Amino acid sequence: MLWSFESFFEGLEIEIGPYRVKQDEMIEFARKFDPQPFHLDEALAGESAIGELIASGWYILSVFMRMQCDAFLNDSTIIVSPGVDRVRWIEPVRANDVLDGKVVVTEARLSKSKPSMGIVTCDAKICNQYNTIVSTLSTKAMFKRASCP
Amino acid sequence: MLWSFESFFEGLEIEIGPYRVKQDEMIEFARKFDPQPFHLDEALAGESAIGELIASGWYILSVFMRMQCDAFLNDSTIIVSPGVDRVRWIEPVRANDVLDGKVVVTEARLSKSKPSMGIVTCDAKICNQYNTIVSTLSTKAMFKRASCP
Repeated sequence: MLWSFESFFEGLEIEIGPYRVKQDEMIEFARKFDPQPFHLDEALAGESAIGELIASGWYILSVFMRMQCDAFLNDSTIIVSPGVDRVRWIEPVRANDVLDGKVVVTEARLSKSKPSMGIVTCDAKICNQYNTIVSTLSTKAMFKRASCP
Repeated sequence: MLWSFESFFEGLEIEIGPYRVKQDEMIEFARKFDPQPFHLDEALAGESAIGELIASGWYILSVFMRMQCDAFLNDSTIIVSPGVDRVRWIEPVRANDVLDGKVVVTEARLSKSKPSMGIVTCDAKICNQYNTIVSTLSTKAMFKRASCP
């Protein structure tokens, strides 16, 4: 299935994931992009205010993107995303957690300036294996119409 | 210098960066977390709607976090970030671009529920070597007070 603008409608729910958080990958990410002690090393993390090794919030969002690519974006007519809103890091993510999530379409409308595309807005949540919500955000992206006028 | 809550005040501007975007790193990130054709390979990208190889928006934000860690966060009393708002990807980032940015404090207030910490809100921008703004966002984080009551 190719997801074009016409595939999205208000209320549509798309399941994403699962994705298992590998400790090596989580730490490697932190070493490159978010080298705070509580993301890097169990011993250092134990001495920090947080008290344990947890994933960078930016790693959680990167995993979210990967789950979206695998679930639908890589078989879609996506053109570009102008941004995301209201990112919330609610609960910590730890090594070996298994993440999944849901993307719910809140609006799908044709572009006024570019009639060959439409804009899809979604509320997304990311959960762990206990079904606890670890993160939420609102996404927006432009998709080409299947039949461009 | 250790950045504690008391270090931040409305209007304070913190310079971050520079960070040179290495093509290998940018593509490796995309392969793991955002494997859309226009982030992976120059030839594939040339055939896409975007028409050229550009960085994942999540890579740009990850580099932003690294610049913040290097500029001040890794010498701070940061406890946690509840989230970010109004992320905008405005202009593409390409291999060998040199990013920097500015973080401007818009509010610094004591926590009502936890008097040992304060909440710092900032507007951030990320620029390239031509001083073009490539991305903006609003950040929020809790920092311990230097002198906890």
